[in-house]
Amino acid sequence: MSVKVGVVGGGQLARMMIAPAVELGVEITVLAEQPQMSAERAADEVGDYRDLDTVMAFARAVDVVTFDHEHVPQDVLRALVDAGVAVHPGPDALIFAQDKLRMRARLHELGVPQPEWAAVSSVDELQAFIDDHGGRAVVKTPRGGYDGKGVRVVENAGDADDWLAALPEGDSLLAEELVDFTRELAQQIARRPSGERVPYPVVETVQRGGVCAEVIAPAPRSGGRVSQVAAEIGATIAEGLGVTGMLAVELFETTDERLLVNELAMRPHNSGHWSQDGAVTGQFEQHLRAVLDLPLGDPSPRQPWAVMVNILGGPASDSLESRFPLALGAHPSAKVHTYGKAPRPGRKVGHVNAFGDDLDAVVYEARAAAEVFAD
Amino acid sequence: MSVKVGVVGGGQLARMMIAPAVELGVEITVLAEQPQMSAERAADEVGDYRDLDTVMAFARAVDVVTFDHEHVPQDVLRALVDAGVAVHPGPDALIFAQDKLRMRARLHELGVPQPEWAAVSSVDELQAFIDDHGGRAVVKTPRGGYDGKGVRVVENAGDADDWLAALPEGDSLLAEELVDFTRELAQQIARRPSGERVPYPVVETVQRGGVCAEVIAPAPRSGGRVSQVAAEIGATIAEGLGVTGMLAVELFETTDERLLVNELAMRPHNSGHWSQDGAVTGQFEQHLRAVLDLPLGDPSPRQPWAVMVNILGGPASDSLESRFPLALGAHPSAKVHTYGKAPRPGRKVGHVNAFGDDLDAVVYEARAAAEVFAD
Repeated sequence: MSVKVGVVGGGQLARMMIAPAVELGVEITVLAEQPQMSAERAADEVGDYRDLDTVMAFARAVDVVTFDHEHVPQDVLRALVDAGVAVHPGPDALIFAQDKLRMRARLHELGVPQPEWAAVSSVDELQAFIDDHGGRAVVKTPRGGYDGKGVRVVENAGDADDWLAALPEGDSLLAEELVDFTRELAQQIARRPSGERVPYPVVETVQRGGVCAEVIAPAPRSGGRVSQVAAEIGATIAEGLGVTGMLAVELFETTDERLLVNELAMRPHNSGHWSQDGAVTGQFEQHLRAVLDLPLGDPSPRQPWAVMVNILGGPASDSLESRFPLALGAHPSAKVHTYGKAPRPGRKVGHVNAFGDDLDAVVYEARAAAEVFAD
Repeated sequence: MSVKVGVVGGGQLARMMIAPAVELGVEITVLAEQPQMSAERAADEVGDYRDLDTVMAFARAVDVVTFDHEHVPQDVLRALVDAGVAVHPGPDALIFAQDKLRMRARLHELGVPQPEWAAVSSVDELQAFIDDHGGRAVVKTPRGGYDGKGVRVVENAGDADDWLAALPEGDSLLAEELVDFTRELAQQIARRPSGERVPYPVVETVQRGGVCAEVIAPAPRSGGRVSQVAAEIGATIAEGLGVTGMLAVELFETTDERLLVNELAMRPHNSGHWSQDGAVTGQFEQHLRAVLDLPLGDPSPRQPWAVMVNILGGPASDSLESRFPLALGAHPSAKVHTYGKAPRPGRKVGHVNAFGDDLDAVVYEARAAAEVFAD
């Protein structure tokens, strides 16, 4: 018996599954969108994840199929399941990560706290929502958005008329209230097909331009109620949506001290990169264990604080590797991770983890090491 | 610029360089002795490491050549250096790991404490050594031994007459006093070509049948003098022999409280596997940084105690993976590492790391998890 995981998608999330797979002794193979992607080391195949024949052939050679992203079409996913392939997370769960309107409706049924929202399909409907919510709204395309794409803050319905005009018959946009929040948090939880669930500590995430810039684990001032409520929300969603593998729940902490669900991701997530070096069991190992239906690992932090800072963009006229001597020399205890991707403004090309007893020192270490890779 | 390391040898030491290479963002390629070896994931080439053309072609495609073992012949190593290839450790250092007689002679010159020893090439010479050392001696073939092979404890010179008879003209065996030791320790140290050195904490190693069974890091009761003397011995050898990369110095702690050098290894070493999960910078990452002449990482332990227990042999009629559910389920905080090797009595097929504040609990955790994989 050997154990083989197939990952659809060749980005850095697939790449970061390689190290724990090799260490534990799990075979891993990746279906990448194109050659030379981040997970190239494990990319035994290149092909279109929207093509059933391609994905089916890939799936036949592995014990379980999982994902680097949530974009594999439902008809492909369902055909895999119908053919007896183990798919984790499965299509019935993934639909809620693929379609934000369905996610909102389902979380409503589950009684999970979230921003006020509505499905809008005309300028009039959107304007009514804006008028009811302080003259502002967040408008989202229900499908295909990520890292701030497919999201607009509008004060007039006309600011979304291009999206409205492009809507297929019967489709809607998602309108959400613009929440007054003090900070953003993220709750990760692992769940395996046989039901075991393991929550990670709730973390604080700092976004810049719609992209995750920094994560502090655990979230400062989250002892007691905040961490408890976040963990309950995570458990309710993981169970209610039947998620298998890692689930990330992005949360707003509001000025009136509520936690509201912002977004979901059903895969390892940028908010959990700290756990690679900061937790007993990192999220990538945990995801592999979960999708293989193996017992889950201890998610406890190994030091009081861990901080993750993304390397965004990278040097304009230089490689990331050219900065290794300076970064490693000045920061011998920082853990530098790079993704084998060419630098490009705003692109996530790596991250730095640091950990220790003193939060200020840990934040400084991670930021300073990441800064060495800036242009 | 990209950074590419070529590893000669496809065993588990090469395999365990893969995870830190992928995480940091260093390319790694392996020249394996045969297909389906432990480091297969990175094994882009299969060939004979004794064949200059094979090794030279492999070396041309990388920035630095390093090793999974010390068996590459000197003439091959020297031809690489003459051709301008960066080889770490280089032939001038490796000769002392390849030839135990040269090692003993050089350590004598450096004033490093070691067992009494002699080069013997006849039954009479060996018998004289035995008679001078309490009627016993350890006899070693100077080249090619590992894991207890090429080592015999003898009370009569005749017990080594097969080895003596097979000696080429001019060659000798190594005779060493049988040291009365209370325990065995190991000192690891990293050194990069530009001179920076970083010592790891001295560890206690437990051998069974000549094979490493268990490691405790740091060695209990090693505070103060023991750790200081061990670190000094490590530094003297690394510097005196010009070692680049990881050096492991196996030590006897004698009943009269001296530290004597037993063996050397110029590569990552079984005594340092604890550092993968127990230190800020694991030995495999450190080796990559050292041979690439990148600044070395922090070797500090992350918890007070780390324990490594080898998985020796594995299940006779079953795969290692078949034991994952039980091992991971009962030991959620243990870190299980397997090498992709088929079980075989006595074979090193994996190891378990555990860490924490309480040594007894950590020892129990590592032993119990490893025991799940026993036959």
